[in-house]
Amino acid sequence: MEELKNIIRDIPDFPKKGIIFKDITTLLQDARSYQRTIDLIAHRYIGKRIDKVVGVEARGFVIGSALAYKLCAGAVLVRKPGKLPYETFSKTYDLEYGSDTLEIHKDAIKPGERILVADDLLATGGTMAAVVDLIQSMGGEIVECCFMAELDFLEGHKRLPEGKVFSLLHF
Amino acid sequence: MEELKNIIRDIPDFPKKGIIFKDITTLLQDARSYQRTIDLIAHRYIGKRIDKVVGVEARGFVIGSALAYKLCAGAVLVRKPGKLPYETFSKTYDLEYGSDTLEIHKDAIKPGERILVADDLLATGGTMAAVVDLIQSMGGEIVECCFMAELDFLEGHKRLPEGKVFSLLHF
Repeated sequence: MEELKNIIRDIPDFPKKGIIFKDITTLLQDARSYQRTIDLIAHRYIGKRIDKVVGVEARGFVIGSALAYKLCAGAVLVRKPGKLPYETFSKTYDLEYGSDTLEIHKDAIKPGERILVADDLLATGGTMAAVVDLIQSMGGEIVECCFMAELDFLEGHKRLPEGKVFSLLHF
Repeated sequence: MEELKNIIRDIPDFPKKGIIFKDITTLLQDARSYQRTIDLIAHRYIGKRIDKVVGVEARGFVIGSALAYKLCAGAVLVRKPGKLPYETFSKTYDLEYGSDTLEIHKDAIKPGERILVADDLLATGGTMAAVVDLIQSMGGEIVECCFMAELDFLEGHKRLPEGKVFSLLHF
């Protein structure tokens, strides 16, 4: 795991001063590290009957779609407003300053389906908490929320369903 | 192939009046159709020594990252301005009205690397032509530009390197 952690690049002052951004693109573009990351996460869910993997726009699509492929599950996209062409459910949630909205197609999840939610990074957990609400309101069963990496000091897992959070790498 | 084509949904008047949008999310969220689509495209490149698969924001990430995983290649992201945290090369290109800009990390592609570019849909080909320019200016060798589907009547392939375009489904 240290090897995978070390390949993630720190970008100081992005997107604003004082924040050290974890740049996962260095991991994604390294073929063996990328494959290993997906395999290590997917391994946890083999035999768990995942119906759909939900990826959150946009970096979550990278993780989510590879996991969906590997687990032979459907790939579902949660997107910013106005991007999904069919009828949607939406959820607005608070950010540090202002708010944000996410959308999901109304037919993307059927009641009782077993859902894995995927994103690249767990920070404050606000976005993922909104996604979990959306999925549960549609009757989807959250198997787990999985992340390539987690910023432990932000304690984002506290905003997500207890015992249903997995992060491969911890910072 | 007809089976895969039929699962793609037509959305009339999206994103604007008079356009019939091809909604691929119905294919992505169907586990078997999604896996079959990725397998059919990937099959073409097995043994072709693909170093990196470049996906174009945002739906291209879905196809590109699953292909990268399957082909054991690196996954590279081409994004809208301001989204990539490290130093970038950028390319501005004309749209029907106005223009758009795409960015790629400067270290994402090394000279001589063999590149597969992936997106969901080939329409006019303007975006993909800009991506091809970016990659070639970095010294990357385009093996092919691949798409889940192509709108044949728009003749987008004419704007891309001759003989280096593959679309799984044709409309």
